[in-house]
Amino acid sequence: MGRVAELTVEERAAALAELPLWNLREDGAAITRQFRFKDFAQAWAFMGKVAALAEAQDHHPEWSNVYNRVEITLTTHDAGGLSARDVRLAKAVDAIA
Amino acid sequence: MGRVAELTVEERAAALAELPLWNLREDGAAITRQFRFKDFAQAWAFMGKVAALAEAQDHHPEWSNVYNRVEITLTTHDAGGLSARDVRLAKAVDAIA
Repeated sequence: MGRVAELTVEERAAALAELPLWNLREDGAAITRQFRFKDFAQAWAFMGKVAALAEAQDHHPEWSNVYNRVEITLTTHDAGGLSARDVRLAKAVDAIA
Repeated sequence: MGRVAELTVEERAAALAELPLWNLREDGAAITRQFRFKDFAQAWAFMGKVAALAEAQDHHPEWSNVYNRVEITLTTHDAGGLSARDVRLAKAVDAIA
């Protein structure tokens, strides 16, 4: 895959408006969302779906899990910040959450 | 499951001697180990095995993943630090890594 461009300020604002459950990281280079489930099994089932999305989109999250909680951070290292790939993956994650 | 005791200083030293690839966190209350794989698919396959161990032992890691890297932190909140549960899970993780 070729290089992907960082979103412009306007593009970022438009994307965030469509992702109300995601927070822009302080440095503006990533978005994060926290998830809470009933237990580890539910959290893990969700993570499996996200992993499949990530592989299908060839774009991977930075994420952590503590029992029933999952935190996902999306950024595009090749772009040095947020790109359309992050927005696409965030929307797909929202659709399964 | 009932409460589990924090390891004594002597028990902790003995456990760490058997877990050379794990690092004691600065506060002494947790151990961590970093793993690096060929790619996300390999990292994810490993995480699946750890998740199964965690469920089987009813003791869950605090962990994060970025593409081919996985970091696992083990601590026992009920004990306020390291317990035999962490040592057991760490050894099981070592066996599959």
